[in-house]
Amino acid sequence: MRILGIDPGLQRTGFGVIEADGPRLAYVASGTISTLEAPRGDLPGRLKIIFEGVKEVVQRYTPDCACAEIVFVNVNPQSTLLLGQARGAALAALVSGGLTVAEYTALQMKKAVVGHGLANKAQVQEMVKRLLKLPALPGKDAADALGLAISHAHAGASFTALAAAAPLARRQHAQYRKGRTF
Amino acid sequence: MRILGIDPGLQRTGFGVIEADGPRLAYVASGTISTLEAPRGDLPGRLKIIFEGVKEVVQRYTPDCACAEIVFVNVNPQSTLLLGQARGAALAALVSGGLTVAEYTALQMKKAVVGHGLANKAQVQEMVKRLLKLPALPGKDAADALGLAISHAHAGASFTALAAAAPLARRQHAQYRKGRTF
Repeated sequence: MRILGIDPGLQRTGFGVIEADGPRLAYVASGTISTLEAPRGDLPGRLKIIFEGVKEVVQRYTPDCACAEIVFVNVNPQSTLLLGQARGAALAALVSGGLTVAEYTALQMKKAVVGHGLANKAQVQEMVKRLLKLPALPGKDAADALGLAISHAHAGASFTALAAAAPLARRQHAQYRKGRTF
Repeated sequence: MRILGIDPGLQRTGFGVIEADGPRLAYVASGTISTLEAPRGDLPGRLKIIFEGVKEVVQRYTPDCACAEIVFVNVNPQSTLLLGQARGAALAALVSGGLTVAEYTALQMKKAVVGHGLANKAQVQEMVKRLLKLPALPGKDAADALGLAISHAHAGASFTALAAAAPLARRQHAQYRKGRTF
């Protein structure tokens, strides 16, 4: 299963693609979509770069599913609004291509990749490098995106087990996920 | 010139299409894209409905340009984040089709349509009905979207005059617009 992870941001949107074959993970690609070339005030122009960038990644690497980081409200409400729009454009590119999108918080990703939710960026980069046997540290945005894809690969195993379980358990899990998703 | 106005929202996104021939305005179409059919917790699913709905409107009515309401931060930061994502998906649908998107605040729209910024929804509906010679009041979301398109038709006349003016004035105008856009 090929998984695309997306870490959305108005200036930089990280992406990471991995192949998951049971517990075995393999690196495929990663990078950053930067909107810095667009004028700062041109929000539609920046959203266009994010949308088309994510679309291009989907077309080039043909993932089977996608996952995106759940973003949080910022102390600055204006930044929250901008980040929300960036995430909306990135998710539109994923869902318009027919991909299902799972959502994880940074905390869930850090727990899955490093083992605890308080890990810093450098620890995420180091663990992503080890888990995917990379020759060097990935960039911070790309590391987060690869970390999300790894989280989804781990979660995928649980979901497959869950699918075989009782419908009641599935519903409860759906409720749990629903409460965490926005 | 055919103008598409979009009033983005996570539950209901209003759209309105008008034809502007100098000062003469004609109604083409309007309506609401509702995401209420998607489960409440399924944010990617709701963004997909918004993206595809706006895309369909663009394909059906082939506007020459588009405009969208500038949304503001809500008292509830979580609502701000959700509204931002809805707007991001709507704008992605516009720009991915190659449309340029102008942005207006609700205040600018009310000034252009009713004559003052403190107008309420009912006054906007009434004035949109009169300006476009509609047989009945348009719905609230559709009225706002049609109002945006009318604002853009009015602004378009100013922009054309401005394009003939000195480059300095154009730059100043660009700066002014930049400060208002986010």
